[in-house]
Amino acid sequence: MTQTLDAPPGQSSASDRAEAWFRDFEAALKSRDVGAASALFATQSFWRDLVSFTWNLTTVENPEGVADLLEANLDRVDPSGFALTEPADEAGGVVTAWFAFETSTGRGNGLLRLKEEEGRDKAWTFLTTLHELKGHEEPRGTHRPMGAEHGASKDRRTWKEKRQAEAESLGSTTQPYVLVIGGGQGGIALGSRLRQLGVPTLVVDKHPRPGDQWRNRYKSLCLHDPVWYDHLPYLKFPDNWPVFAPKDKIGDWLESYVKVMEVPYWSSTTATSATWSEETGEWTVQVEREGMPLTLRPKQLVFATGMSGKARMPEIAGTDVFRGDVHHSSAHPGPDAYRGKKAVVIGSNNSAFDICGALWENDVDVTMVQRSSTHIVKSDSLMEIGLGDLYSERAVASGVTTEKADMIFASLPYRILHEFQIPAYEAMAEKDKDFYDRLEKAGFWLDWGDDGSGLFMKYLRRGSGYYIDVGAADLVANGDVKLARGQVSHLTEDSVVLEDGTTLPADVVVFATGYNSMNGWVADLIDQETADKLGKVWGLGSDTTKDPGPWEGEQRNMWKPTQVDNLWMHGGNLHQSRHYSLYLALQLKARYEGIETPVYALQEVHHTA
Amino acid sequence: MTQTLDAPPGQSSASDRAEAWFRDFEAALKSRDVGAASALFATQSFWRDLVSFTWNLTTVENPEGVADLLEANLDRVDPSGFALTEPADEAGGVVTAWFAFETSTGRGNGLLRLKEEEGRDKAWTFLTTLHELKGHEEPRGTHRPMGAEHGASKDRRTWKEKRQAEAESLGSTTQPYVLVIGGGQGGIALGSRLRQLGVPTLVVDKHPRPGDQWRNRYKSLCLHDPVWYDHLPYLKFPDNWPVFAPKDKIGDWLESYVKVMEVPYWSSTTATSATWSEETGEWTVQVEREGMPLTLRPKQLVFATGMSGKARMPEIAGTDVFRGDVHHSSAHPGPDAYRGKKAVVIGSNNSAFDICGALWENDVDVTMVQRSSTHIVKSDSLMEIGLGDLYSERAVASGVTTEKADMIFASLPYRILHEFQIPAYEAMAEKDKDFYDRLEKAGFWLDWGDDGSGLFMKYLRRGSGYYIDVGAADLVANGDVKLARGQVSHLTEDSVVLEDGTTLPADVVVFATGYNSMNGWVADLIDQETADKLGKVWGLGSDTTKDPGPWEGEQRNMWKPTQVDNLWMHGGNLHQSRHYSLYLALQLKARYEGIETPVYALQEVHHTA
Repeated sequence: MTQTLDAPPGQSSASDRAEAWFRDFEAALKSRDVGAASALFATQSFWRDLVSFTWNLTTVENPEGVADLLEANLDRVDPSGFALTEPADEAGGVVTAWFAFETSTGRGNGLLRLKEEEGRDKAWTFLTTLHELKGHEEPRGTHRPMGAEHGASKDRRTWKEKRQAEAESLGSTTQPYVLVIGGGQGGIALGSRLRQLGVPTLVVDKHPRPGDQWRNRYKSLCLHDPVWYDHLPYLKFPDNWPVFAPKDKIGDWLESYVKVMEVPYWSSTTATSATWSEETGEWTVQVEREGMPLTLRPKQLVFATGMSGKARMPEIAGTDVFRGDVHHSSAHPGPDAYRGKKAVVIGSNNSAFDICGALWENDVDVTMVQRSSTHIVKSDSLMEIGLGDLYSERAVASGVTTEKADMIFASLPYRILHEFQIPAYEAMAEKDKDFYDRLEKAGFWLDWGDDGSGLFMKYLRRGSGYYIDVGAADLVANGDVKLARGQVSHLTEDSVVLEDGTTLPADVVVFATGYNSMNGWVADLIDQETADKLGKVWGLGSDTTKDPGPWEGEQRNMWKPTQVDNLWMHGGNLHQSRHYSLYLALQLKARYEGIETPVYALQEVHHTA
Repeated sequence: MTQTLDAPPGQSSASDRAEAWFRDFEAALKSRDVGAASALFATQSFWRDLVSFTWNLTTVENPEGVADLLEANLDRVDPSGFALTEPADEAGGVVTAWFAFETSTGRGNGLLRLKEEEGRDKAWTFLTTLHELKGHEEPRGTHRPMGAEHGASKDRRTWKEKRQAEAESLGSTTQPYVLVIGGGQGGIALGSRLRQLGVPTLVVDKHPRPGDQWRNRYKSLCLHDPVWYDHLPYLKFPDNWPVFAPKDKIGDWLESYVKVMEVPYWSSTTATSATWSEETGEWTVQVEREGMPLTLRPKQLVFATGMSGKARMPEIAGTDVFRGDVHHSSAHPGPDAYRGKKAVVIGSNNSAFDICGALWENDVDVTMVQRSSTHIVKSDSLMEIGLGDLYSERAVASGVTTEKADMIFASLPYRILHEFQIPAYEAMAEKDKDFYDRLEKAGFWLDWGDDGSGLFMKYLRRGSGYYIDVGAADLVANGDVKLARGQVSHLTEDSVVLEDGTTLPADVVVFATGYNSMNGWVADLIDQETADKLGKVWGLGSDTTKDPGPWEGEQRNMWKPTQVDNLWMHGGNLHQSRHYSLYLALQLKARYEGIETPVYALQEVHHTA
């Protein structure tokens, strides 16, 4: 009876059900009864593990998959202490429970969803994540450093002296254990976590200042994701931060963040080659720091050079005879120099729209060339329908912090994620019907993804093919930005000619034609053989456009062990840079500390690019 | 009966009692029945108002004081909507209740303590604070700016372009409404709040970079207050921040903060004179910005030049014949140049101990000259006994955020604050008895404040006379740092001679002799007449050492209207810079918006320095 004082009956019973499941699960694990443990999972079920059981990012399916994972790992992991961290919840027949647990080496957090099957509660989705390594907890909160060293000591060195000594020795008398190539949000978030974990790390970046990765882009650029989705680890944006931050403001934030978090960071530094030595067990990386050549010898090499990979610049006949400016969108300087002139923008995704909009605003005569269909969602609708429950002021007010939202998002299995997404995009299509009708009337070729699952799935599968509309779509709909459809045949001295013969006069041509797989960076820095051994980066193997099968279960090669030892790929949007940098950092920390890290289900390579 | 499901009986009845009191109070206010309202206050009671009722920082006492405050302000303020913001609490016969309310112009928060008197609940302490002005709410949280401006517009200017245009016009074609002189934590916190409130503001500081105010001090300096006490507005230190941050790290934080919060800030800028014109209603302030003279014409002038005021350098005969270095502690460069030499440090408070400790650590032969008694508390004990309930990881874990701690601290009336403090310092004396015995044995002259109320009262009354021990006291206790007691008579070529004839050989003499009242800055920049009209700054009028009576009730001249119109004094430690900058910012914002701000109980001047 006292329970009714603590919680409404529904909630209490949800907790009872979750606790009963965990009792059974832990008992089965304790007695090493893999059959009993896997029988607690539903016929269709998903266990996603981020590093805690598998030293991998991997998802297994159904009781058979669970049994396989446990057979391979249970003895070593020795999991225990499963306990709810707050009362469980029940809605629509699904019990949702947040929990903590530990393993032989670490402490973890997770999220369980139970469904009734044949009268018994079975796990439908089960997320387990490593949170910290035992004995290697981060110095935060109650464990934060003292700063001042009380007492008196003739050997005292101040914080500043220590920082200076460290900066002077790094790369000369001391070597980083981890070298991170690329200092955008991905490299910075990882560098910051490794710093916290005490792993000697160096982040190098070609730009003169941290944040230039954003500052150098086209001048109208603002983040397309809202602030609640964009926090970096440890230090959140203040609550006066804009919903969609302008690029220069984000640039300034990243620069301050590097300083405040004490991330070892070399600006104006380009990596020119890297080779792995099996004998010494280390990389030899040639870099140029402010023009001076230097050799670094890290044990671990992380590419954080942009998940979009290298700029894809199609080889178009006549590019050499065209007399105006021609460049990839990533090198577009903005509209100022083109006022009163004619621009042709090849492409119809985010960058193309942003650039067309800014050109039009600056009195440039602009034509967009659409070569394939595009998925468009209005930013407001995406916020309201697509993101609002997880990343918004409303979510925060209802207790869904950014950290919790990250876990909820991670708990939805990629295999069935599109099923959750389709209804949201159907709702957006309905809500903004007039908008889409006007675009189609203007001749714009729309899509909603191969299976109607919309933006996030396109992002996860191929990282391209969409525009989050912040206003430029209307310019196309009403003809302010002209629209042409088709493939580019060639350039002349002063125009772009399409395959159907359409001639578009141009003073400037912008190829907003996207990016190739990140392993292109590996080919450049190491060699093609290593790039092929690593294989394609990004995508789920969904067998949809630009994401060939077979099914991978996780993002290819991202944040986890690959077929190339001691080589790691990191990055993604701010959400991914924040959340997945934790798991990559813990994998690197474990290796640094000499903890055994047998990888379960190391992924195979099915595509080289 | 349903109430018992919501809260334990004690808590519920505390809420009932607080709600009943507020019902009576609001009814009395509504009917303008000052007698009934003031009768709700205990015979000995305190109403502290921060701007919400009085456009002042003021405390009235007892029913008579309450009646006076209400007679003067009730009609204009028209308060309403008093409501608990969380369940009230009862302990030791005192009901404590957090509440919100509104006035004709703003919204406020407060904290009430009730005590039973003659069978009725009466207010014992009552804190009312202005939180925001209606129609001028800060753009935060759900009201944060969008950042990206959706849609397309030929007049679009980017964030960066707007920031550049603003920076170029400020001080030439546009004038700041508020000029803040001094860009340490005080000026920065105020500048940041005014920026948020949309008040055109400029902060000027003589140093080359924000944060140099800390960087330039002696090299072993760390904050003596812990991190939970030190947060700035809007952006908290991350949870890996050291408990006692080193000075250079704080310097870097302040520099980043200025950038991230977009505080208009001119470095390398010195104000050389200021005059007020009654006709134009503005100040004429001459400044030199990077050596270039310039005239600014703000309506409001804020001194944030350091609450400690100007360095106090006693005139000692022989200073001109002394052949070594001689300087005030604020100009002490640190120990490096004095290794193997002899130093004499005049003074025995915080700076003196820190400097002596660092000199000893660098193999300098150091003598401390104690001229008067000093209050010493061990940092650990201060944290545990003095601050831990309000500012600590433990406090945060129990729901006492820094913001809540600030309100609790503000709710304790200055008149009786020492009564709350005395037991804490008695506990520290007991806990660290051995330590104090050893110091006294070494000849050190200890005190606990005139009435045994310890450190905070000394800080609030005189801002001096204490050392928070982080280790150097032991050096004095064990003789590593030599101790001399007495007044300085004169300097010779190579020694300090005390009045009793003791001669202390010296290569360097440091005067750690404290600071004079802040109105010294006013005399320098404006004139002596204005400094005298303003009067002494800091202190409570407690009639204790260095804080002459009569009783003022609040800190003299800090953060509130003074006898000099349009002139304001701001500063204090990080806690005060954070919390009181809100009330100063709201006073300035109201004047900027032309809201009427009749000041109740404008303070009189009893001392000129």
